[in-house]
This record gives sequence, C-alpha cells and structure tokens, in this order.
Amino acid sequence: MSFEKKLTLLGIELPPPPKPVATYVPAVRVGDLLFLSGVVPFRNGKLALEGKLGEDLTVEQGYEAARIALLNALSIARSEIGTLDRVKRVVRLVGYVASAEGFVQQPAVINGASDLLVKIFEDAGRHARVAVGAAELPLNSPIELEFILQVI
Amino acid sequence: MSFEKKLTLLGIELPPPPKPVATYVPAVRVGDLLFLSGVVPFRNGKLALEGKLGEDLTVEQGYEAARIALLNALSIARSEIGTLDRVKRVVRLVGYVASAEGFVQQPAVINGASDLLVKIFEDAGRHARVAVGAAELPLNSPIELEFILQVI
Amino acid sequence: MSFEKKLTLLGIELPPPPKPVATYVPAVRVGDLLFLSGVVPFRNGKLALEGKLGEDLTVEQGYEAARIALLNALSIARSEIGTLDRVKRVVRLVGYVASAEGFVQQPAVINGASDLLVKIFEDAGRHARVAVGAAELPLNSPIELEFILQVI
Repeated sequence: MSFEKKLTLLGIELPPPPKPVATYVPAVRVGDLLFLSGVVPFRNGKLALEGKLGEDLTVEQGYEAARIALLNALSIARSEIGTLDRVKRVVRLVGYVASAEGFVQQPAVINGASDLLVKIFEDAGRHARVAVGAAELPLNSPIELEFILQVI
Repeated sequence: MSFEKKLTLLGIELPPPPKPVATYVPAVRVGDLLFLSGVVPFRNGKLALEGKLGEDLTVEQGYEAARIALLNALSIARSEIGTLDRVKRVVRLVGYVASAEGFVQQPAVINGASDLLVKIFEDAGRHARVAVGAAELPLNSPIELEFILQVI
Repeated sequence: MSFEKKLTLLGIELPPPPKPVATYVPAVRVGDLLFLSGVVPFRNGKLALEGKLGEDLTVEQGYEAARIALLNALSIARSEIGTLDRVKRVVRLVGYVASAEGFVQQPAVINGASDLLVKIFEDAGRHARVAVGAAELPLNSPIELEFILQVI
C-alpha cells in the first residue's frame, strides 16, 4: 500500500514543514540518502510540549512529543521528494531526550516516533536507532529527532 | 590477516547480538554503508557497568565499558553481514559518555572502543570519531556507541 | 568563485589541522562522503574558549567558538582532499553545545558555524543541521561540531 494512503487511513495530517530560522536547510540529499535537520515537536508554529523528561513531563508525554516531531520530519521529507511514496527505507534515527537527573527511559520516549514509523512504512520503517539524554534542547524542547532516509 | 582470525588470536569472543526491545532494528544497510543502532555495554543480557563517569565510575571503568559495548556492535555487524571479514572500513563512531558535572575526559573513555578497533582491524579500523558528554543514557548505561561501517 | 579564493577574500586563514591524540583519524572518506571527526575551537594548539554556555560564556562567545571550530574542520577537509574547491556540498552538521541548566539557545550558538559556511560556500554551504545541548564536552570545550561533506 502507498505510504501516503496509509497516512490518510491512520487519520494523520502532516503539519506544514518547519522553516529553519537560520542559515541551514531542512534537508540535504546526496545520492539516495536524505539527511534531515533536527526536528522538534512543533504544532501550529510552536512547541506542543516543553520541558524535561523526569521533571516536567511524563514518559507518555515524551512519547507524544516524539510522535509530533516525527510528523514534522515527514512533512520536510514530503516537501523535499514530493511524496512519501518515494521513501525506500528509514535508515537511522537519533533521538535526543532532554533529561533531568536520573531519567534513563529515553528509549520508551523515542518509541513514540519508532512505533509510528513502522505503522506507516511497515518493514521500510524499521530503522537503526540511537536514543540518548541531552542536558538541554533548543527552545526548551523535550526531544529532538534526526533522520536519515533512503529515497528513490 | 582475517579479522575473524585476529579476534580469535586476541582471545575475544563476541556476545550474542543484543535484540532491540522496540520497533527498531540492530542495523540498516544502504549500499556499502551499514548503520548500527546504539549499543551499550551489555554482558549476559544486562549492563556490565552502570552509572556516570566522574561520579560512579573511573576513567578505567569507562574505558572497559566502551570496550564491551564495541563487542556488542561487532556482534551485530557479524550477524548482519555473516563475517567481520566483510568489514572494509570502520567509518565513524559517535561515543556518548554519561558525564557528571565537570567530567571532561570523554575521549579517554571512548578510547576503550577505538583502541580495540585498531587492534582488530588495523588500518581498516581507523575511524572518524566524536566523543561527547550525555546528561543521561538509557538504563543508566555509562556509555553508548553508534557506528557506521563500510562493508563489502 | 573558488572557495579557496573566497576564504582569502574573507581574510580567513585556516589553522593547521588538529591531530587526534588517540587511535582515530581526522576524517574518513566513503565514496563522495567525507566524515569528519568532532572538532573543538582550537587555536594555537589549545582551546580558544572554555566552559559552558549559560554559565561561563555568552551566546556571542559561543558563536565565536563555533566559528573557530569550523575553521579546524575546514583545515582537516583541505588536508584530506587537497583544496576546499573540491567540496561539492556541506551535507550535515551536528553541533553540540555544553549547556548549563536552563540554556536553550543552542541554535544561536551553532549559527557561528552555519553563517560562515554559507559565506564561504554559498549555496553549497547550506547544510542540514542538528543543534543539541551536551552535559559536558571534551577538555571543557564549549562546543563540538561534527560534519559530513560531499566532495569531488
């Protein structure tokens, strides 16, 4: 099934692609690899959730933040390659989680993105992953995701 | 000399490849690049060492943790490509070190992986490297390593 | 215009390439991708600035640190490929910013590298970017940059 159709079936509507405010770009393609800039959980132009895991937010809220950040990444990807149906494989995801002292459940938070990737792209959505704790993230975002996609 | 033979000569036995507990996979290959998921120092299914550098663990213990995490990565690589003799080059290693306030010897810790890579793979083991301090890491792991390998 | 000439016009002189002190190398090339090791703001063999953003250094000082670290990266690149005129595209930059509690302006700091990249390489300098906060960085460096370049 088309990944775009799958998105529709799942009732998911992508936000407009976030615009970098500085001298970088949302994505760079080299051969069949698409390197995406870091994404945070923007919704309607501002962070849907703020703060640190283990202090301000629960794991469930972090999971939701990861899901929203993924939508921003997919929006960038679609805007770069025209349609998500040209995604051949989600290659790698690095998930940074703003972590208060003692918070070590980064994987459970980043699952918010990983789970949805597999729902949408099935086997093509199974990616290599790194989940780490960050001291602080831009704008007080709870998470930041960096993707490499293989595209056609 | 064969890298597999070198491993045997060094008396190194790889652990079984760690299994991701979530919807990601241990590695993704695109062309001749193999992207590995983050590895931590698992031994017999649990962390061989826990805690932060500069607080719970010495640099020597961190070095050992990096060495053990590398074995997990090599185990994944072997399981993906059949034999380590198909490693053409270790391309890049990012080493995250769980760092207490004021701990700035991340490079000395990550050397535990870098040194062993060169022992096993010689020139093919010389990699680009990034060593950084993380606020927290999954499961209270002291280090996490992310590899990109070039494979045949 | 030649990127090397642009560098001269901008009055920029690159430092000698920093030498890794351990068993890794400054850069590894695979196909047309050049993966650079992490760089810190070295000048004359030592850190030009030290400490954390939000505590020891202002955003302006962090911006300057990112600029200096970039010069180290460009020096490595030139040493690997002979001339910066063989840079086809700056693909991706990960910028780690040593961040004290509550410092969330990592993007403004990393702009020190991004802005200069675009001045030197123009459109070829527009890169995908990730800016994150690190708990600690090697040698008490305020920033660390990791680049992937596409080269000819």
